[in-house]
Amino acid sequence: MIIDCHGHYTTAPPQLQAFRDGQIAAFKGVAATAGWERATADISDDEIRSSLEGAQLKLQRQRGTDLTIFSPRASAMGHHVGGEGTSVAWTRICNDMIARVVSLYPDNFVGVCQLPQSPGAGLKQVVAELERCVTELRFIGCNLNPDPSGGHWTAPPLTDRFWYPVYEKMVELDVPAMVHVSASCNPAFHATGAHYINADTTAFMQFIQADLFKDFPTLRFIIPHGGGAVPYHWGRYRGLAQDMKRPPLTALLNNVFFDTCVYHQPGIDLLAEVIPVDNILFGSEMVGAVRGVDPTTGHNYDDTKRYIEALPLSDADKKKIYEGNARRVFPRLDARLKARGL
Amino acid sequence: MIIDCHGHYTTAPPQLQAFRDGQIAAFKGVAATAGWERATADISDDEIRSSLEGAQLKLQRQRGTDLTIFSPRASAMGHHVGGEGTSVAWTRICNDMIARVVSLYPDNFVGVCQLPQSPGAGLKQVVAELERCVTELRFIGCNLNPDPSGGHWTAPPLTDRFWYPVYEKMVELDVPAMVHVSASCNPAFHATGAHYINADTTAFMQFIQADLFKDFPTLRFIIPHGGGAVPYHWGRYRGLAQDMKRPPLTALLNNVFFDTCVYHQPGIDLLAEVIPVDNILFGSEMVGAVRGVDPTTGHNYDDTKRYIEALPLSDADKKKIYEGNARRVFPRLDARLKARGL
Repeated sequence: MIIDCHGHYTTAPPQLQAFRDGQIAAFKGVAATAGWERATADISDDEIRSSLEGAQLKLQRQRGTDLTIFSPRASAMGHHVGGEGTSVAWTRICNDMIARVVSLYPDNFVGVCQLPQSPGAGLKQVVAELERCVTELRFIGCNLNPDPSGGHWTAPPLTDRFWYPVYEKMVELDVPAMVHVSASCNPAFHATGAHYINADTTAFMQFIQADLFKDFPTLRFIIPHGGGAVPYHWGRYRGLAQDMKRPPLTALLNNVFFDTCVYHQPGIDLLAEVIPVDNILFGSEMVGAVRGVDPTTGHNYDDTKRYIEALPLSDADKKKIYEGNARRVFPRLDARLKARGL
Repeated sequence: MIIDCHGHYTTAPPQLQAFRDGQIAAFKGVAATAGWERATADISDDEIRSSLEGAQLKLQRQRGTDLTIFSPRASAMGHHVGGEGTSVAWTRICNDMIARVVSLYPDNFVGVCQLPQSPGAGLKQVVAELERCVTELRFIGCNLNPDPSGGHWTAPPLTDRFWYPVYEKMVELDVPAMVHVSASCNPAFHATGAHYINADTTAFMQFIQADLFKDFPTLRFIIPHGGGAVPYHWGRYRGLAQDMKRPPLTALLNNVFFDTCVYHQPGIDLLAEVIPVDNILFGSEMVGAVRGVDPTTGHNYDDTKRYIEALPLSDADKKKIYEGNARRVFPRLDARLKARGL
């Protein structure tokens, strides 16, 4: 079984974005949108099927992957837009859309939620929505944005006690978070080319600097996009931890995992050389940041399974990357698959 | 000849930092520091020699490198501290210290300047200091900070016309810039573990997005720390450029270069596999961000020459990385070496 730990619903029917455009225009973020519960009521099941059949489902079949851990479009989370009420309404709608996708294709998708973060707001709504998504919608994890300001980085580091309420809930529910920013409203940062990668790098360094996992020994994070710059600079991080008298990086590897959203063979080669195989989860981010065909290979850049296939690893190790590690990091997925005899 | 393109005067005599501490305490950044011209007058030549003999010079000898392209301590540039006047005074002092180092050891060091940047200020003082350093102090390049706010990223992208006055002066003087941030005053970003690497990644993506090098075909930048996350994600950047209908990345390689400050063999292997050899400049950042000994090799993490030696490259290609590319990117250095028969 091949589990893709990183997919977003980037192809949702246009009514979803139409609602969002209206929300932004009408409320300028000062209040929740009245009537949002009905915002996507006119999206039919057939429209949802159609939005997936020619995209994620087609690519699953073409590439030979089985199950995508699926969350709302990351760049559209837009936590910096409007206030907390705006974020709560938009987040519930987006998560409910994922739940509909999963109900239509339970063999192909399993849900991970967006959280209603908002700059300067507390985490009460975040905790509530996480609980709703896991207990009511049967989601198995969440995407946590370390920078809800969208490129101004006004939030405390992920190791700050500010974040502890959401970590307590994650531990209670036994769900991991992918560290994932949204769009950038800072012109210095291109979203998928700079902000995403910087956030990955930044989060890992924050984890080096503090003792978060002493307080939460079972808390688990996936750092997407192959860990940002981290594996490429693994020696730098080993050396910084050493100079700072912090524990060796291996101490983080009970809690921190990396996906394979690195879009060329040399990058995946390095990832697999540097990061222990137990800490790598197959991911493609499809349909996502890069949609074209690499002229040097004739295949899509984000067809990351091809790069994994080319690695000099045993079948047992590849199975960890494809399936075993995801089942370990997402215990609710493992339980569900076991219940289905898988 | 082995030229290290990336060294900072991190070991300067303590009077330098004492002046800085006094400057910050006394002026809180609202004015230039009276008497700054005499601030380091009590630092003797012997003190400067002593600050280098046991550090950079010892390491040059131990590692078998010849000449370091030397600039003030990057993390101490602190452009976010105080106002423009503060930055002007501090910058001149730091650059003058580099000039003294070069005058004492002209075979071992050549100068690159810090610039008196300040958030919200224009570039008049920056241009003036660059001209002073190149024409009077005989420096061969500069360090340009894309984020003088120190982690709040309030400056326009490097491709914005805001920066054009300094680019015009760089072109006129035929000197390159290393893109180098300073300390982070944003608790989200560890300086050398996140802010530095993020800035490298960010700058490269900015270059992809705009046509800066159409306006300045001879402008040259070195992106330090092995280009941040860029080589590891080279496929992502190729794909993003393609999706955005931008020129292929190779179009940037007349103007953008990467150093070898990547502190483990797999990282350097990837760098050399992905980036053309003509675009890689040997650098170590010593004495710098990582000072320890890698227990897996028994050598200093930042002894990057060992990693280059281990690359499966021809001697001619290694000579490019060690010497030829630096002489091409820094024409004033090349002219100086030629005048010395080198």
